[in-house]
Amino acid sequence: MSHRVGVLGATGAVGQRFVQLLDGHPTFELACVTASDASAGDSYAEAAKWRLDTPIPDEVGELTVRETSAEALPDDLDLLFSSLPSGVAAEVEPDLCEAGYVVSSNSSNDRLADDVPLTIPEINPGHLDLIEVQRDERGWDGALIKNPNCSTITMVPTLAALTEFGLERVHVSTLQAVSGAGYSGVTSMEIIDNAVPHIGGEEAKMETESRKLLGEFDGAELTHHDAEVAASCNRIPTIDGHLENVFAELADDPSVDEVREAMASYPGADLHSSPESLIHVFGADHPERPQPRMDRMRGDGMQVVAGGVQPTPRGVKYNCLAHNTIRGAAGASVLNGELLADTGWL
Amino acid sequence: MSHRVGVLGATGAVGQRFVQLLDGHPTFELACVTASDASAGDSYAEAAKWRLDTPIPDEVGELTVRETSAEALPDDLDLLFSSLPSGVAAEVEPDLCEAGYVVSSNSSNDRLADDVPLTIPEINPGHLDLIEVQRDERGWDGALIKNPNCSTITMVPTLAALTEFGLERVHVSTLQAVSGAGYSGVTSMEIIDNAVPHIGGEEAKMETESRKLLGEFDGAELTHHDAEVAASCNRIPTIDGHLENVFAELADDPSVDEVREAMASYPGADLHSSPESLIHVFGADHPERPQPRMDRMRGDGMQVVAGGVQPTPRGVKYNCLAHNTIRGAAGASVLNGELLADTGWL
Amino acid sequence: MSHRVGVLGATGAVGQRFVQLLDGHPTFELACVTASDASAGDSYAEAAKWRLDTPIPDEVGELTVRETSAEALPDDLDLLFSSLPSGVAAEVEPDLCEAGYVVSSNSSNDRLADDVPLTIPEINPGHLDLIEVQRDERGWDGALIKNPNCSTITMVPTLAALTEFGLERVHVSTLQAVSGAGYSGVTSMEIIDNAVPHIGGEEAKMETESRKLLGEFDGAELTHHDAEVAASCNRIPTIDGHLENVFAELADDPSVDEVREAMASYPGADLHSSPESLIHVFGADHPERPQPRMDRMRGDGMQVVAGGVQPTPRGVKYNCLAHNTIRGAAGASVLNGELLADTGWL
Amino acid sequence: MSHRVGVLGATGAVGQRFVQLLDGHPTFELACVTASDASAGDSYAEAAKWRLDTPIPDEVGELTVRETSAEALPDDLDLLFSSLPSGVAAEVEPDLCEAGYVVSSNSSNDRLADDVPLTIPEINPGHLDLIEVQRDERGWDGALIKNPNCSTITMVPTLAALTEFGLERVHVSTLQAVSGAGYSGVTSMEIIDNAVPHIGGEEAKMETESRKLLGEFDGAELTHHDAEVAASCNRIPTIDGHLENVFAELADDPSVDEVREAMASYPGADLHSSPESLIHVFGADHPERPQPRMDRMRGDGMQVVAGGVQPTPRGVKYNCLAHNTIRGAAGASVLNGELLADTGWL
Repeated sequence: MSHRVGVLGATGAVGQRFVQLLDGHPTFELACVTASDASAGDSYAEAAKWRLDTPIPDEVGELTVRETSAEALPDDLDLLFSSLPSGVAAEVEPDLCEAGYVVSSNSSNDRLADDVPLTIPEINPGHLDLIEVQRDERGWDGALIKNPNCSTITMVPTLAALTEFGLERVHVSTLQAVSGAGYSGVTSMEIIDNAVPHIGGEEAKMETESRKLLGEFDGAELTHHDAEVAASCNRIPTIDGHLENVFAELADDPSVDEVREAMASYPGADLHSSPESLIHVFGADHPERPQPRMDRMRGDGMQVVAGGVQPTPRGVKYNCLAHNTIRGAAGASVLNGELLADTGWL
Repeated sequence: MSHRVGVLGATGAVGQRFVQLLDGHPTFELACVTASDASAGDSYAEAAKWRLDTPIPDEVGELTVRETSAEALPDDLDLLFSSLPSGVAAEVEPDLCEAGYVVSSNSSNDRLADDVPLTIPEINPGHLDLIEVQRDERGWDGALIKNPNCSTITMVPTLAALTEFGLERVHVSTLQAVSGAGYSGVTSMEIIDNAVPHIGGEEAKMETESRKLLGEFDGAELTHHDAEVAASCNRIPTIDGHLENVFAELADDPSVDEVREAMASYPGADLHSSPESLIHVFGADHPERPQPRMDRMRGDGMQVVAGGVQPTPRGVKYNCLAHNTIRGAAGASVLNGELLADTGWL
Repeated sequence: MSHRVGVLGATGAVGQRFVQLLDGHPTFELACVTASDASAGDSYAEAAKWRLDTPIPDEVGELTVRETSAEALPDDLDLLFSSLPSGVAAEVEPDLCEAGYVVSSNSSNDRLADDVPLTIPEINPGHLDLIEVQRDERGWDGALIKNPNCSTITMVPTLAALTEFGLERVHVSTLQAVSGAGYSGVTSMEIIDNAVPHIGGEEAKMETESRKLLGEFDGAELTHHDAEVAASCNRIPTIDGHLENVFAELADDPSVDEVREAMASYPGADLHSSPESLIHVFGADHPERPQPRMDRMRGDGMQVVAGGVQPTPRGVKYNCLAHNTIRGAAGASVLNGELLADTGWL
Repeated sequence: MSHRVGVLGATGAVGQRFVQLLDGHPTFELACVTASDASAGDSYAEAAKWRLDTPIPDEVGELTVRETSAEALPDDLDLLFSSLPSGVAAEVEPDLCEAGYVVSSNSSNDRLADDVPLTIPEINPGHLDLIEVQRDERGWDGALIKNPNCSTITMVPTLAALTEFGLERVHVSTLQAVSGAGYSGVTSMEIIDNAVPHIGGEEAKMETESRKLLGEFDGAELTHHDAEVAASCNRIPTIDGHLENVFAELADDPSVDEVREAMASYPGADLHSSPESLIHVFGADHPERPQPRMDRMRGDGMQVVAGGVQPTPRGVKYNCLAHNTIRGAAGASVLNGELLADTGWL
């Protein structure tokens, strides 16, 4: 069964990834693209300064760009993907949900709201039922579902695999790619032969979103995980792929092998865009992996990659990586859309 | 009073920094350079493929390169600086000390030996008296003194400033420049659009050297500091300057202002190459600093730069940076040489 | 009809591309890999430090690496691809041809020999008949065929399209990727925040090979094209894809449109690895293209991309680009192999 | 004798270089800085997001930023340096000249006007007398003088050295640093692992400005040099320093040695910011030089560096380099200011 979908904010860096990932999707048909008012009325090929290394799908290039508002959208869309700037999204998304649209959004607004599911299908699919709470409280016919921030989603699958060992505290440092800031977010003068140890708001996102993702939903209320999380976020001169160093303190004392095995055996979801196993784990023979340029496209950019697991006095340290605009943004929203379809919400 | 000095391994990346830093030094006169046997007999200008952005000092370019052995060296040198590969240094340095030379070495061998001072003049100048223990045990007329690894020395000054708050545990992630691996240590294919989360042996160096540096010497024995230190080390595409994210757990509960003040007020040493204050601290108005390209040359590359101090549940997190081939290598050895001169060991 | 093939020098940067490109090839079955003696006897998975972003094909990973010599090879191979260092190739390739093997080689030795076809299938397939001259002169049962240097092959297709306008003189500047020098050819210290205006021997290759490729073979002798060619070659910090600025002086006075049309209409060859049209041409609406990261994978890395065509006082200037380790190396040799198969030489 | 000077557009990339270069200048005292209206009234330290690796001079940091208009400026300034955006400069500079100010401008407007001196003091100081023509025609009390575009000024000194050999035609390719586009001109997504073969308007600037610079001024009219110049301009991932490949066709047939000697013996000007010899020339033992990171700071960034001189069928090819924001922008304007002072125009 096929669904007609739209992409809000389709000309930006994440928007273009949406268009690329939806090309040839088995059940989603991209029927509508929106952008800022200035581009409305242009063909998508004109409006998008396409910058990916695969061509614009012909039929999408010919779509007319619409304004981003409930009035401008056709009625027959089953699902909207959103990569709007969070300020715009905060205004538009509630209107669209009110108007009956289901929105799978990558925008950062409302991720921590009590009645908004923040979901990674392989980790916490049950949180999706928060939609019922949401509809009750907000009186919406539609629904709003969020995926986490790109740096959070890189780490959380590995943390989920560690919860069985009594996860107590996390210190994480990130080495993040420039595409995470959008096409114009980082200037070349800022980053060539340099690194920037600050990404506005990013650390707080990692510290709060990860605890919500690992939390328990009892059908009525969602309790966040009680692990302490502290993050330091850095921008480095890479195009795609966030690399992270994690120090995890554990109540139990698992061996390095047990930790690797817990990660490597973490299952994928039975959804089109989910990899067979969620985490690829490099062993002690490849301590230098994962690396952004070598590993970001594993599982078509949807697999998390881990390595360098070593003991510390209180637990383990290891490294993890994911493609920030696929698993960390557009791909995460598409996968959430697949979960919505699979569980009957569309 | 002036001293004639030599540089062992003068053609490598650190060796060239030694030559650059000694040019115009007020009390050290570079009188001798050594390299591998293949280069012996050539002029330094021929042997060194000089790659720094200031020219070779004329009189050094004309020096004849000597073999790296006690026999090949002139007798009238007061001090030798060493940037030999550690395998070579492990063989040659003891011979030279036996022959009566005082060696200030950047090589990693013997840094943890019980009777070898591992010294940062602003931090632990008293450890220098380990030379007496060393001479007793080894029967040397000369002496061997070490400076720490480049990633260690970037962090330890800030930790030293935190010891008054009850330093208990450190998690640190590094973003290290390629010059730390020498001219050929990192290929361009490895690092462009990439990062490598592994530097062989580096993490252990940070974890052990830092505790020795912060340890207590009672005149007979050196007790290492008991803080737990765990490090994750990464190579990124920068030329010079190591940036580090530190998570420090503290027994006390200092404010962010107190932490900044403790760092900013840490004094320099009264030596030629030491900056007036050891640590430059950026405040909350500049969370994006320090950055490698912008801050590595502060204090002529000898100052440590910190910033981004923020509270965590158990202490503070912050970022620090130093120039890895100046403060982190050649400059550190030169400064140790100045300490040796100042305290009468030459 | 299928052919069993081998790759000589299979562990290097170009060797790995051969393995990648031959995976799933419709008519070539990779049955043998060789490397230096030190690796002989190991599995390919062990010997190759695989660095491409797709995994080693399982069945190739299990192949046992052989020495690179006629004695060590099985008899039943129809074709050998060679990416040996040119010094090694100069010794080994003649032995293999003598022993009856047909060798499609990317190595630079013998490219200018009078009896060795230097071939781009879309440009000068008829040069292949030089093999008859070669066999006469050398008494070989096998045959040696070469593809040009990566920087040459990027430019020559566009020059071939201009010959109809009376090509008289070419000035060309290259901006070449680091992969062209192999995995260890360019250190990170050499190229980050830098460019190197010299690549040993490269300029002479462009100046001579291009004239041979555009030359006429009358069945007995090959006459080089008489255009003057002068090249300046630069290394820049890109991973893959050579970009070139060409100034072509023409006897005729074609319009910019005629030049674009001549390039865009240049046909591909009817061979598996040849793109449908040899040259993709960007028009005046995209003066900023081609660009290495955006355009190197066009036509699976086998298409040449041109743009920026503008008039000059004596002809035209334009830019061209190709993937240097696919169209410029391994892919070029594979395509030559396909031509050999198609024309009955295997 | 000292002059009070102002910098128009002092907060941008070139503006900051002006401030840096004027710090400690023996005869120019920086007394006034202007920026866009939004910054007017702020201290310079607040308004400029200072990004150079030396600190803001204290006394400049405390200057109050003024609006960029004749009314807002103090009367007692002898000279204004301008790095305004060309659109703004085209409006403001004539007003200022009308109001009596002498303006040494780096902005691109009016560089080709018949009565505006486009000057490099070492090359064509006599063109300065165009000011008389300018004052006659425009009725100004002040004067407007321009320095050329950064890519032009890198090449023209070497061409000036070749005019004695009958310079007939030039083909030039540039590899330009990102700082040439200002702090936000090139995004990181555009340039990491990439190169862009187009810089809007740059090629025309090189083709026209170079002929004006090499032209003859007879006291009344300036005749441009008749050499044909065609340029291809590329942006590459370097921070500072433009590298250029020049193919120069010459009527005479000088040897490579004669060409090198003509360049190396080209004198500097007797002005504070001019190097002793204008061009440093690398010989055949260093074909890999000049390189941006290694050579851009020669002569404090004011020397042009050449190398790789080789014969071509019609002349020579060689490479040249200069620091694009020092010799190519702020330093060029300051040097023109020194010429104005030296020749009595202030």
